[in-house]
Amino acid sequence: MAEENSPIVSPSAQPVEAELQAVGADIQPTVEEPPVTDIADAQPAAEAPVIREAQPTAEAAAQPISKAEPAAAVSAPSESTLVVHHLNNSRSQRILWLLEELEIPYSIKKYERTPTMVAPKELKDVHPLGKSPVITDGDLTIAESGAIVEYIIAKYAKGRCQPPDSGFVDNLYFSHYAEGTIMPVLFNKLIFTLIPARAPFLIRPVARVICAGVTKTLVEPQLRTNGEMIEKHLEKTNGGWFAGGDVPTAADFMMLFPMEAIVKRAPDCLGEKSKAYVEMIHARPAYKRALEKGGRYEFA
Amino acid sequence: MAEENSPIVSPSAQPVEAELQAVGADIQPTVEEPPVTDIADAQPAAEAPVIREAQPTAEAAAQPISKAEPAAAVSAPSESTLVVHHLNNSRSQRILWLLEELEIPYSIKKYERTPTMVAPKELKDVHPLGKSPVITDGDLTIAESGAIVEYIIAKYAKGRCQPPDSGFVDNLYFSHYAEGTIMPVLFNKLIFTLIPARAPFLIRPVARVICAGVTKTLVEPQLRTNGEMIEKHLEKTNGGWFAGGDVPTAADFMMLFPMEAIVKRAPDCLGEKSKAYVEMIHARPAYKRALEKGGRYEFA
Repeated sequence: MAEENSPIVSPSAQPVEAELQAVGADIQPTVEEPPVTDIADAQPAAEAPVIREAQPTAEAAAQPISKAEPAAAVSAPSESTLVVHHLNNSRSQRILWLLEELEIPYSIKKYERTPTMVAPKELKDVHPLGKSPVITDGDLTIAESGAIVEYIIAKYAKGRCQPPDSGFVDNLYFSHYAEGTIMPVLFNKLIFTLIPARAPFLIRPVARVICAGVTKTLVEPQLRTNGEMIEKHLEKTNGGWFAGGDVPTAADFMMLFPMEAIVKRAPDCLGEKSKAYVEMIHARPAYKRALEKGGRYEFA
Repeated sequence: MAEENSPIVSPSAQPVEAELQAVGADIQPTVEEPPVTDIADAQPAAEAPVIREAQPTAEAAAQPISKAEPAAAVSAPSESTLVVHHLNNSRSQRILWLLEELEIPYSIKKYERTPTMVAPKELKDVHPLGKSPVITDGDLTIAESGAIVEYIIAKYAKGRCQPPDSGFVDNLYFSHYAEGTIMPVLFNKLIFTLIPARAPFLIRPVARVICAGVTKTLVEPQLRTNGEMIEKHLEKTNGGWFAGGDVPTAADFMMLFPMEAIVKRAPDCLGEKSKAYVEMIHARPAYKRALEKGGRYEFA
């Protein structure tokens, strides 16, 4: 039985918790449930919905969207009112990196994972799913990494972080692939590690067999296939960015987190170009500033 | 032991296969593995990477991207050369709907799920992950639903399918949320149904207990929380579209599939507005044409 003030994690599950932090997952314990249900609200930590107050800024309202220029809907304001609701050790670290690259003023409201590594309840006051990353910008609340990255670039980048012509489709693709394909694979890797660790003692050995089988034959082959695809892609880029240009674009801000996660948790699944990509980003001053501001982060 | 020409599915697993089809998942059997590994390459059926030949069209190359107008990179060609590589009963049905709404010429290359409901190997010749949806457009190959929808709208919609100013962020959000958050929840629902059905006979009862626990405490609460968020959002829209305007936008083309899946598989998790949304789309002539062209589809 999990208690709020006594960690639900048995000693054997400690490594799982470490991995949980690393993948940035948000496992919400069900306090009154038997152990197998401790995995309760396990959610890909970081994605959550926009709160419905979505209103155009005064500027945007006065300036209707040109159909050919969707970015006009969020035309640049005089100054940033951005707040990043930042959960430590999570996907919201990528948002800090983006903001540091763009040198946009912003503030951070920090949320710390509970002793069981879940997001604190306060995040539910920011948006209904209670997950991170989520940003507020005046009256707007925006969740979902991909939406946040696109919004910030459209509103604040002033033409920076754009792919070259030849990288338009690659930028589109990897912007969606990061959360749509590779993160679910990484999250399943975590889930199948957590289940046996949190199963009732008597069925734990069987749970371990089942989950090891699924991991070996489902999750790991997927990681390898995806890792090969990523490596082949990066071999073809010049400067090392996913869209092939001279600057990081939305695709890079989206891809860094899963790349970091695979480097730390399944390094055999990534090739040399992929590892060099992560190192290249870790060496950037903007990344280092983001790291300092974000606090503890296991993937750097 | 799974054999290519003998379905790996035991009688008790038949309902799972039905659900598998429905969620559009692509479970690739591992032929030489013991039963627990039959779940092998279970992948969210439909997402896969862009093949690296990404080259700008002749028109696009001659017309550099304006930083403020990313859509210019895929400026409209004289006529469509679009081919939808369409896996029956899958997420690529949403791409057909989009193309019918836009009345763009396209052709369909059909792929049928194997008797074990996986995507056929031929899809690997189209792109490395062998999944659907994937489209080709001349020399370009584009995968990942979100990227395909954005590409088609940018290149072919000629200003249609755009959100109103006030729906810019909602459109962004739900375009990413569909594959980034709600589809992984639906896919996990499927996985935890498949595992006991495909586990070795002796451990099947234990697998069933474990998976039922995870489904009840992890997956179903997530579906309910997400369903409530969706319902509350749709209550605030006027015409019923996710971005609040008069026409479907990228968010709708992305959201329909998970909405259809929840209506069919977990209807208690969706409210009245959400169900009306699905019915509204099913009544559209463009949707009906897409359905006729796509072939068997369990969610309509």
